[in-house]
Amino acid sequence: MKNAVGREIPDYLLTGGREVYQGKNHMDGREFTKAAPTVKRYEAPRETKLASSIREALEQCGAKSGMTFSFHHHLRDGDYVMNLVMAEAVAMGLTDLTIAASSTGAAHDPIAQYIKDGIVVGLQTSGIRGKMGEVVSQGYLKTPAILRSHGGRPRAIEAGEVHIDIAFVAAPTADKMGNCKGWGGKSDCGSMGYAMTDAKYADKVVVITDCLVDYPNMPASVEAIDVDAVVVVDEIGNPKKIASAAARMTQNPRDLMMAEDCARVMEATPYFKDGFSFQTGVGGPSLAVNRFLENRMVEKGIKMGFAIGGITTPMVELLKKGLVGKVIDVQDFDLGAVESIGRTPGHCEMSASQYANPANKGAFVNQLDFVILAALEVDTDFNVNVLTGSDGVLRGAPGGHPDTAAGSKCCIIVTPLVRGRMATVCEKVVTVTTPGDCVDVVVTDYGIAVNPLRQDIIGWLDAAGIKHVTIESLKEKAYSMVGRPEELQWEDKVVAVMEARDGTILDVVRQIKPYSFD
Amino acid sequence: MKNAVGREIPDYLLTGGREVYQGKNHMDGREFTKAAPTVKRYEAPRETKLASSIREALEQCGAKSGMTFSFHHHLRDGDYVMNLVMAEAVAMGLTDLTIAASSTGAAHDPIAQYIKDGIVVGLQTSGIRGKMGEVVSQGYLKTPAILRSHGGRPRAIEAGEVHIDIAFVAAPTADKMGNCKGWGGKSDCGSMGYAMTDAKYADKVVVITDCLVDYPNMPASVEAIDVDAVVVVDEIGNPKKIASAAARMTQNPRDLMMAEDCARVMEATPYFKDGFSFQTGVGGPSLAVNRFLENRMVEKGIKMGFAIGGITTPMVELLKKGLVGKVIDVQDFDLGAVESIGRTPGHCEMSASQYANPANKGAFVNQLDFVILAALEVDTDFNVNVLTGSDGVLRGAPGGHPDTAAGSKCCIIVTPLVRGRMATVCEKVVTVTTPGDCVDVVVTDYGIAVNPLRQDIIGWLDAAGIKHVTIESLKEKAYSMVGRPEELQWEDKVVAVMEARDGTILDVVRQIKPYSFD
Repeated sequence: MKNAVGREIPDYLLTGGREVYQGKNHMDGREFTKAAPTVKRYEAPRETKLASSIREALEQCGAKSGMTFSFHHHLRDGDYVMNLVMAEAVAMGLTDLTIAASSTGAAHDPIAQYIKDGIVVGLQTSGIRGKMGEVVSQGYLKTPAILRSHGGRPRAIEAGEVHIDIAFVAAPTADKMGNCKGWGGKSDCGSMGYAMTDAKYADKVVVITDCLVDYPNMPASVEAIDVDAVVVVDEIGNPKKIASAAARMTQNPRDLMMAEDCARVMEATPYFKDGFSFQTGVGGPSLAVNRFLENRMVEKGIKMGFAIGGITTPMVELLKKGLVGKVIDVQDFDLGAVESIGRTPGHCEMSASQYANPANKGAFVNQLDFVILAALEVDTDFNVNVLTGSDGVLRGAPGGHPDTAAGSKCCIIVTPLVRGRMATVCEKVVTVTTPGDCVDVVVTDYGIAVNPLRQDIIGWLDAAGIKHVTIESLKEKAYSMVGRPEELQWEDKVVAVMEARDGTILDVVRQIKPYSFD
Repeated sequence: MKNAVGREIPDYLLTGGREVYQGKNHMDGREFTKAAPTVKRYEAPRETKLASSIREALEQCGAKSGMTFSFHHHLRDGDYVMNLVMAEAVAMGLTDLTIAASSTGAAHDPIAQYIKDGIVVGLQTSGIRGKMGEVVSQGYLKTPAILRSHGGRPRAIEAGEVHIDIAFVAAPTADKMGNCKGWGGKSDCGSMGYAMTDAKYADKVVVITDCLVDYPNMPASVEAIDVDAVVVVDEIGNPKKIASAAARMTQNPRDLMMAEDCARVMEATPYFKDGFSFQTGVGGPSLAVNRFLENRMVEKGIKMGFAIGGITTPMVELLKKGLVGKVIDVQDFDLGAVESIGRTPGHCEMSASQYANPANKGAFVNQLDFVILAALEVDTDFNVNVLTGSDGVLRGAPGGHPDTAAGSKCCIIVTPLVRGRMATVCEKVVTVTTPGDCVDVVVTDYGIAVNPLRQDIIGWLDAAGIKHVTIESLKEKAYSMVGRPEELQWEDKVVAVMEARDGTILDVVRQIKPYSFD
């Protein structure tokens, strides 16, 4: 069945009431009964929940084959916890396991082997990269991976579409009863927003820390009332690997030019007024928008009301200068942000559900005026791909992209027109991860295009004298520079399902075919 | 059927798996699936949830006859919100309503008429006083009132035994989307701990505030993601009435003597060591224990690890002096505490479930070393009554009494031996609200008694040279002073069920019989 972004979705995936994508806000107003965990009553006082090892905690929690384990990715490329737990589960002889992670990355290459071995048979995540992406794209995972946005994940958990048997919480500090937070230890990650929802909906919760602190570790991001066991390990991760190259401030003149164009577009809209709200991604030009905004706010004598998202140092600096009222933080992208959350007044933590869940009663993304986002590809229908590479292999993460695009009043995609030999603006993206009806403006180094659905924005840019072109002309320019790409070759097998934030199916990713030269 | 505290529980109450009280920690380790609300998806961004009136909010939330409305009592005797909402509901012609409140008090006298009129037919609360207590005791409420402890209430909500159709949150500050907290406004109440659980389990949530603040009002005690409507009214209450007479520091020499005896008992136990934990009630002698503790901690060179509970100024002062590590707060009993929470470092808010729920994975009460509590009556089985007066009329509140008594290592009841013409230590309390197996020591102005179940404490007091007597001798002394009370006269009809914290039935309260002189 073809969906609203023109993708053919196999009927066999449409079970259990699942629908294909039918456009933005299709599910608005529907009622549902939330899921709930099955838990044990800890009525008699216990002195401690400390288990001597991950193995002991797994045994205490009744870990068995067929279960779903959840993880969060605040330690990003420095995370050790998923590998520690999965190695122990494999050593116990468990199999048919599903990993439900808020994201995965290069740190999790060892999991690829468990997928090849048929031990890990299911994967639900926002991001997939490295060896895991390769083996899934090669068809080794027994069931299609389910890719969800950061808002789609808590939606699915709260709807009962993902049932977490055991949630594993990588905790920079924890007390003996399981109250934990993301700072005060040796492997601080800052916000633990993604773990907060998991801990409330999992049957069992295991906290893994490398810094045990006095009870009570309050205020707590994950609360002892939801925790079954606490394990102390040598190291939960390497916090130096939290900041990726993408999160560093660019000095590239092309990036800076695009960033300034983003700021010009923002300034041209009526949303750019005192109290406006903002989120930006961590890609070079996205992050650089911060510096251009500062000048414009000062000139105009306005302040930002609040900023959300994955947070980086530049936003913390704006907060400290009084140029933003509140910074609401689901994840920290660099150590400056890690060191600020909960200590800089106005820098607050939020859960994944507060951040982006489209099925609660009003997530932060829905209050956004502006979001600046990157893309691997954007097509002439304004559909964006941030998941699959030009070879069709899984190597990206929708993250909060689809949520902020859908919720914001003005979603700006910023990307160079070509990357190496690949056109970024193209006719059809390999995989639709953010639907075109959520994308308003595309800023490239060769021009700005506005979605024709947004005639209001077109008018504002014209009034401000900001030149813009059609998305088709950007595509033609790109193809004239690097050529039209050849069609990718796929097997039939669906290896991953890309869910829209509302739970409908936006696209599927099929098994890659070894390239043939005939 | 007779229960473990010797009370006859009518079989007709034992429906739906309900059991009679069978002793402390009887339910430990049982598994259950949590309840969950039925909610609406707010997928499309909304600018505001402001409703123009309580009536409009009720209509938006589909308020109808037969529903259960929940309220929290942080504004205590100064609360206006329950009366405002119920008056509107009555004006709309709704009937067969159940009120599920964390407590009720003198502020809620107008509700008595709705009970007499058969409009309010169910009542679930921790406290009941004034006219409401009278009309319930007179048999006007259609169904037996259910009295629960502060821990029993979130337990029942999470177990699905109470289903809240609409939760009403009295919010000192709120933003247009419903993020709210207990300070920053004109009617500050401090902690909103009891409302936190309601908001997560109610189908609909209405925030009522008299101070609308900029979005986002973060960090929030009740989160916008759970809120359907926000109503601004002139006044949500009178915060001057938060502090009752009971919460003022006593100068009564008898109270001070008993308070000092409590501190001596505490000091005699091995629990009185660096890092110990503590809660005290707000009755005169209970509250006065704080001042005697301070000297003893300084002399011994130790500090309190944490204090919990309803919080008063003396505990905040200990925190500021560095004599207590953390103050974890579910409710504030005076304006000094209201002004401190969230602003004095280490003074944190907790939910009712974190505080006292015996069915989660480890509430704070279960980590208590000491609790000091008052009593209306305590009997020779160490059962305590804090609910019914000597005339059998409902006029009290179990509150956190049963929870802290059960969870703590050393529960001390402090009470004068007689009050006016009534013996406080007696043969059988009118109503058992805290079972004797949870009570360790009784301190009176005529001597100290230790529960024979606690031979360890008896040994420690002997070693410290602290005199103690049997509870029977205290009872005899009391009766010798004021006489043995006459048996109360009751009708058959059960007007209230007193649940133990685990959900079993501890006692029932029957309709009072007009006193007859034959």
